[in-house]
Amino acid sequence: MKAQRVEVFVCPSATPADTSGLQALADAGKIKPDTLVALVGKTEGTGAHDDWGRVWADVALREWTGKFLGVPADEVAKHVIFVLSGGCPGVITPHIAAVTREWIEVPDLGSDKRLVVGRAGSDPMPPEEVGRMGQIRKVATATQAAMDDAGLSDPKDVHLVMVKVPGLTTASIKDAESRGKTVVSHDLTFGPEGAGVYANDAAALGVAMALGEVPEALLSDAVVRRNWDLYSEVAMTSSGGEKRHGEVVVFGNSNASRSNLRIGHAVTRDFIDADGVRNALRSAGLHFTDGLPDEKDLASRLVHVFAKSVIPGSDQIRGQRITLLDDADAYQIGKALGGMLVASVTGRTTNYVSGGERNSHQGPPGGNIVAAVVRTEA
Amino acid sequence: MKAQRVEVFVCPSATPADTSGLQALADAGKIKPDTLVALVGKTEGTGAHDDWGRVWADVALREWTGKFLGVPADEVAKHVIFVLSGGCPGVITPHIAAVTREWIEVPDLGSDKRLVVGRAGSDPMPPEEVGRMGQIRKVATATQAAMDDAGLSDPKDVHLVMVKVPGLTTASIKDAESRGKTVVSHDLTFGPEGAGVYANDAAALGVAMALGEVPEALLSDAVVRRNWDLYSEVAMTSSGGEKRHGEVVVFGNSNASRSNLRIGHAVTRDFIDADGVRNALRSAGLHFTDGLPDEKDLASRLVHVFAKSVIPGSDQIRGQRITLLDDADAYQIGKALGGMLVASVTGRTTNYVSGGERNSHQGPPGGNIVAAVVRTEA
Amino acid sequence: MKAQRVEVFVCPSATPADTSGLQALADAGKIKPDTLVALVGKTEGTGAHDDWGRVWADVALREWTGKFLGVPADEVAKHVIFVLSGGCPGVITPHIAAVTREWIEVPDLGSDKRLVVGRAGSDPMPPEEVGRMGQIRKVATATQAAMDDAGLSDPKDVHLVMVKVPGLTTASIKDAESRGKTVVSHDLTFGPEGAGVYANDAAALGVAMALGEVPEALLSDAVVRRNWDLYSEVAMTSSGGEKRHGEVVVFGNSNASRSNLRIGHAVTRDFIDADGVRNALRSAGLHFTDGLPDEKDLASRLVHVFAKSVIPGSDQIRGQRITLLDDADAYQIGKALGGMLVASVTGRTTNYVSGGERNSHQGPPGGNIVAAVVRTEA
Amino acid sequence: MKAQRVEVFVCPSATPADTSGLQALADAGKIKPDTLVALVGKTEGTGAHDDWGRVWADVALREWTGKFLGVPADEVAKHVIFVLSGGCPGVITPHIAAVTREWIEVPDLGSDKRLVVGRAGSDPMPPEEVGRMGQIRKVATATQAAMDDAGLSDPKDVHLVMVKVPGLTTASIKDAESRGKTVVSHDLTFGPEGAGVYANDAAALGVAMALGEVPEALLSDAVVRRNWDLYSEVAMTSSGGEKRHGEVVVFGNSNASRSNLRIGHAVTRDFIDADGVRNALRSAGLHFTDGLPDEKDLASRLVHVFAKSVIPGSDQIRGQRITLLDDADAYQIGKALGGMLVASVTGRTTNYVSGGERNSHQGPPGGNIVAAVVRTEA
Repeated sequence: MKAQRVEVFVCPSATPADTSGLQALADAGKIKPDTLVALVGKTEGTGAHDDWGRVWADVALREWTGKFLGVPADEVAKHVIFVLSGGCPGVITPHIAAVTREWIEVPDLGSDKRLVVGRAGSDPMPPEEVGRMGQIRKVATATQAAMDDAGLSDPKDVHLVMVKVPGLTTASIKDAESRGKTVVSHDLTFGPEGAGVYANDAAALGVAMALGEVPEALLSDAVVRRNWDLYSEVAMTSSGGEKRHGEVVVFGNSNASRSNLRIGHAVTRDFIDADGVRNALRSAGLHFTDGLPDEKDLASRLVHVFAKSVIPGSDQIRGQRITLLDDADAYQIGKALGGMLVASVTGRTTNYVSGGERNSHQGPPGGNIVAAVVRTEA
Repeated sequence: MKAQRVEVFVCPSATPADTSGLQALADAGKIKPDTLVALVGKTEGTGAHDDWGRVWADVALREWTGKFLGVPADEVAKHVIFVLSGGCPGVITPHIAAVTREWIEVPDLGSDKRLVVGRAGSDPMPPEEVGRMGQIRKVATATQAAMDDAGLSDPKDVHLVMVKVPGLTTASIKDAESRGKTVVSHDLTFGPEGAGVYANDAAALGVAMALGEVPEALLSDAVVRRNWDLYSEVAMTSSGGEKRHGEVVVFGNSNASRSNLRIGHAVTRDFIDADGVRNALRSAGLHFTDGLPDEKDLASRLVHVFAKSVIPGSDQIRGQRITLLDDADAYQIGKALGGMLVASVTGRTTNYVSGGERNSHQGPPGGNIVAAVVRTEA
Repeated sequence: MKAQRVEVFVCPSATPADTSGLQALADAGKIKPDTLVALVGKTEGTGAHDDWGRVWADVALREWTGKFLGVPADEVAKHVIFVLSGGCPGVITPHIAAVTREWIEVPDLGSDKRLVVGRAGSDPMPPEEVGRMGQIRKVATATQAAMDDAGLSDPKDVHLVMVKVPGLTTASIKDAESRGKTVVSHDLTFGPEGAGVYANDAAALGVAMALGEVPEALLSDAVVRRNWDLYSEVAMTSSGGEKRHGEVVVFGNSNASRSNLRIGHAVTRDFIDADGVRNALRSAGLHFTDGLPDEKDLASRLVHVFAKSVIPGSDQIRGQRITLLDDADAYQIGKALGGMLVASVTGRTTNYVSGGERNSHQGPPGGNIVAAVVRTEA
Repeated sequence: MKAQRVEVFVCPSATPADTSGLQALADAGKIKPDTLVALVGKTEGTGAHDDWGRVWADVALREWTGKFLGVPADEVAKHVIFVLSGGCPGVITPHIAAVTREWIEVPDLGSDKRLVVGRAGSDPMPPEEVGRMGQIRKVATATQAAMDDAGLSDPKDVHLVMVKVPGLTTASIKDAESRGKTVVSHDLTFGPEGAGVYANDAAALGVAMALGEVPEALLSDAVVRRNWDLYSEVAMTSSGGEKRHGEVVVFGNSNASRSNLRIGHAVTRDFIDADGVRNALRSAGLHFTDGLPDEKDLASRLVHVFAKSVIPGSDQIRGQRITLLDDADAYQIGKALGGMLVASVTGRTTNYVSGGERNSHQGPPGGNIVAAVVRTEA
C-alpha cells in the first residue's frame, strides 16, 4: 500500500524575492519537482491588500517554482499551492516553509499517526462571491478535495487547513459592478467591515462546513462576520487581491504515513493566553519540563508553528479594558502581538503568524488557533 | 525610629481624564493628602510627543490632585511626582497607580526588607540640556536625593528608578536657538535619532551615574545613544515636551519599612524572553509552580509590574532577522510587544509598560528591565 | 422690525485647550454672553473617533463658555452650538471661529442680502439610529428649526449647514446591542464602511431632506452610502463618539440682516479643482483680478472659508489612476489634501477643512463643498 | 555639427512592475535601444527605505530594459539612468517617463534654446560616505560629467538635475561599522535626522557645488542639514537603500538642440505657493490667460512637471502655525501636499512629485523646486 512521507523545511527570506533558501534545498535534493506540494510563508511588507512585498514574493516564487518544475509560471498553481501571508510586524521573521510529500510503498499501516498533507485548488471566485456563500461553498468543496488528497476522512485527524482566497480590489469591484453585481464591502482594508476580513471569514466558514464544525443549514451570507458562534478550530485563512482561485492545504495525522513529523493544534482562550500556545506544542508531542517546553525539544524537535492572531471583538481582556479595537494601527499591532505570544513560547521568531483582523470565524470568539509540527523521536 | 509603610493602588482609567478611581481611593481613606507621593500611569493616546491624551491626563490629574491636597494645580509637582507614560497600544490597559507612603514610629528595624519609596524633583532643564550631560547630571542629583528621601544608601537595594524628564518641542527648540544654543536633535519623534529618545537615555545614564552603574568619568554628550555598554538595570525613563523639570521616584527594599509589599527586578536577555519577566516576579518573591508563576499568587499577591520595551538595536533575534527596525510604526509596535510579553506572563493587562525606542541605556543591549511589586505573605 | 447682525471671529489655537483667543474677544467686548451662538473649529489631534485633542478641546471650550455664559458646562449646548472637527493634517491651522449674532431694530429690510445664522439642537440620537433614517429625520427637523431661527425660508438662501452628530463608540455599540438593537457598522473608523462616515452621511441626507435637495420618499436606511446621486450641496457634517444630540448651524443670506458679512458657496467638480474653491470666493462677492482672487481682498475682505475634503469614490481623476483609495492613511491624507487645495487659493492656512471620508452625500460624487464668508465693501 | 533631439514620454503604470507602456513605445518605434537615456518615475508603495513597490519596479524595469537593450539587467545602469521615486500618496499617478535622445547632424546652431539632456553615473558610494562630503563630491563630479554629456556649460541653462543616490540600510550600516567606519545616522527613515534625508541633501549640495550655487569652500560634513542658506535651485534628489552608485540626469536648454521641447523652472516661496508652480510653467513657455495657464496649452503643450515637496522646517506658514512637523505621518502627508499643489495648477495627476523630507538643501528654506517641460509651438 501507499503511504506519505511529508517534510517541512523552513527558509528565512532576506528579501521578498529571495529564493536562495529554496534553491539550496533543491541543490541538496531535499525538494524535488515531484515532491514539492506547497509553499507557505510570511512575506515582509505592509500586509495590506496592495502589499507589494507579498505581490513581488508571489511573482518571484512562482517564477522560481516554474523553472524548478519545468512549467510556465502561470501553471505553477496546478502543481504547488502557495499560501503567502503578507506582513511581518514585530518579531515575525520573513520565511518560506516548503512542504514536500513523497509516496512510498509500505507493507502495512503505521503503528501511530504521522503527518500527511493534501491540497486542492478551488473553482474561480468572482468578486461578487467574495465574503459570501459562493466563496464558502467553493472553499468547502476544495477542503473536501484536499482531505481526499491527504487520505484523511475523519475531521478529528485534521489539525490545520490553510486557505488563500481572492479578496477584492478597486479593479475587481469595478468589474463586478459593471456586470450589475454587488460586492460585500467597498472597504478594501482589513478593518472590521473590510473586504479582506469578509474573504478570510467566508473561507473559514467553508472549512468549518467541510469538517462538519458548522452545519451547512446554519450558513448564509447573513452570518458572515455576524454570528460568531460559528467557527472552525483549524482554519487559517488569508486573502489577496491578485488571486482568482482559492487554494487549500490540509495538514493532519494518519496511519498511512511514514513521515517523521506529527502535527497538533490547540486554541487559545483569549488574546494573552500563552498556555494555549503551549498546548499546541503539547498536542503535537513536544516534551515539557516544569510546565515549560523542554529547551532541547524546542531546539531539535519543533519544526514549525502556524498561528492566527485575530483581535478580540471585545474591548475587554480578563475584565480589563484595552484600546486595541480603537487603534488606527490595530491591524498591524494585532498581528504583531500574536507573533510575540508565539515567539515568547517557542523561543524563536520564524513562526507563521497571520492575523490582525478584528474578530473572525477562525477560532472561537476571543481565541486563536495555533498548530505545531514536531519531529517524532528517533 | 521611623519606618515607611508604602502602598500601591492600581486604578484602571476609562478616559485620559478619569479621576474616579483616585476619588474612590480618597473616599475610602486609602490615599490621603499627606500620604500620596506619586502617580505613575499609562495614558491612552498616540504616545507621541504631542500626545493629547497624555497632556490632558496630566492636566486633569494635576487639577484633581491640587484639589485633593488643597494646593494650586501648578504646585502639585512639589508634593506628588507624576510619571505618566503615553500610549497603550495592544494589551496595555490605561491606568494610574497611586503610591502612598506613611511614616510610622517603630521600635526597631524590620526582620526583612520591605518596599520603600523616595522622590525628588530636579532643577529645571532648558532645551539645550535635553539629551546631554546637563540632563544626565541633574537626573543623577535628583536620583541621589530620591534615594535619600527613601532612606536607601546601598544601590543594590534599589530596584526601580522612574524618571520623567523634559523632551523637546518645536517651541522649545525655537527658544533654545533664539538664545544661540544648539539642541541635540531636530527630530521630535521617538525615532532612533529623535529628541525623545535622547531625553530618555540621558535620564537613564543619570540614574546609572547616581547608582554607580556607570562611572561619571565615562559619561559625556558623545556617549549618549552611542556607547551601549553604558546602562542602568533599574532606570525607566520617559519624556514629555510640556515638562520643564525632571521628576524621580525611587523604589527599593529596606529594613526601615513596615510595608506589606516587596519589590524585585530582573532584566530580559532579549526581546522575546518571557523568562526574564518571570525572573522579575521571582525576584520580588512570587511563588512558582511547575516553572510558571502560581495562579493564586498572580491573582492575590502580584500588585503591579513595571516594564520597559525598548526595541533591540539589531535586526536579529536569536540569529534570525526581524524587520521591526525598518518599520514606520516601530515605536507603537515595539511598545505593544512589551505589553504582550508581560501580559502573557502576568495574565493581566494592567501592567505599566513604556518603550518603543530603538536601543536604550535602559537595560543592556537587547534586554529590557522588568520590576514587580508583590504583596508579602500574611 | 428685527434684523440680525452677525460676526465671525477666527482665533488660532496654540493647543487644543487654548481659550486665550476667545478670552481676548470677550475682554474686547466683541463676543458677549447673549451674542455668542456658535463655536466652529478645527482641533489638532488624530481626527479619529478617539481623538483626545478634540475631546479635550470640547471639554475645555465648554468649561470656558460655561463660565462666560454663567451656566454649568453641561448646559452650554442649550445656548451655543459647538462644531469641532478633529484633525489638522498638513496646512490646516488649528483654530476656533466664534460666531456672534445680535438682533437689532431696523426700520425696513436691507437693500441686499447679508449674512444670517440660525442654530438648533436635535433630539437625542441613540446608537441604533446612527447612520440611519432616525438620524436623517432628526437632522432634517433640526435643520428646519435652525433655518427658522435664522429667518430663512428659501433654501436658495442657505449656503452652509454645519452639523455635528453622534457617532458610535465601543461603549455605545455595547449599549445598543445589550438592548437588542443593531448598529450600522462595527467599524469605528472613518473607513468606507466605518460608523463615522455613516453618521456624517446620514446627517448630510438630513440636511438634503430639509432643503428639498432630496425628496423624503427617496430616503431609506438602504440608500445611505449606496446611492450617491442623493446629496446636499451645502451640508458639512462631522461626528464624534462623545455626542448624544445633533447640533445644527445654518448660514445664509437675508434682507433681514445688517451684517457686514455675506456668504457664498460652490462645489468643486473633482478633487483637484482649484476653480471650485475660487468660485466659492466669487459667489461670496470677492473681487478677482486676472482670474485670481484679488490679493488685497484676500487680505482684508475674506473672513473665513469652510470646506469639505471628501475622497472621491473612484480611483480615477480626469482619467488617470490614483492610489488614494488603497492607502491605509487615506483618511488623514484626504483631509490634508483639501487643506492644501483651499490654502493654495486663499493664501492662508486658517481654513476650516474637514473630511477624509471616502465618498459622501456631502456634495456630488467626486466634488466637494466650499463656502466662504466675505466682508462687504465699505 | 551634432545636435540633440530629446523627447519625453509619460506612461502611467498599472502596477509597480508594469512595463506595458514602455513596450508600447518600443513597439511604436518611439523609444529605441540607442535613444533611451533615462527612466524617471513615481512608483506606488510606502515611499519608505524598504518600499517593496519601488524595489520591485526597479527590478522589473531593469529586466525589461536589459532585454530591450540586449544587455544583462545588471549592466543596464551603464546605458540608461533610472530615477525611481517611491510613494504616490494622494493625487500622484504612478508613472514612468521615458527620456530619449537622438543625435542628429545639423548645419548650424538653433535660433532658440531647446531641451537637451545628459547623464552620468558616479563612483560607488560606500555607506560611510552617505550624507557626507564623500557623497557631495561624487555627486558634484557626476553632475559635471552629465552637463558635459548634455553639452551644457553655463549653469544658467541648467533647469533640472535629478539625482538618485544610495541611502543606508541595516545591512550597509552593519557593513560600515564592521570596517570601523561611522555612518551619518542610525535612523533609516526620512525623518528629520534620518539617513534618507542626509543622503538626499548631500546629493543636493553636490549639485549646488557643481553649478557654483554654493562654493566648495563652504561645504563640509557639518553643514549638511544644518546650514539651510546653502542650497540648489535645480536639484531634485532621492535615495534608495539598494543603490551603490549615484546616478545623475541633467536637463537644460541649448542652441545645440533640435528638440520640440523646452524646459523651465521656478521656486515656490512657501509651501502653499501655487504661483510658484505657475511660474515654472511660465518659465518653460506655457501661455497664460487671465492669470491662469491656458487650458488648451495645458492639454496639448504641457509635457511633464517635476516638483519637490519638502516640508518647511518652521511650524509657521505666512504667520500661522501648522502641526505638520509634529505629525507622525509628515513624510507621507508632506509629499501628498506637493502633489496637490501641482495637480491643482496643471489639472492632471501624472506629475513627478517627490519629497516629504523636513527641510532640505533642495530649494531655499520653505520653498520648493518645480520644473516643467513644454512642447514648443508649431
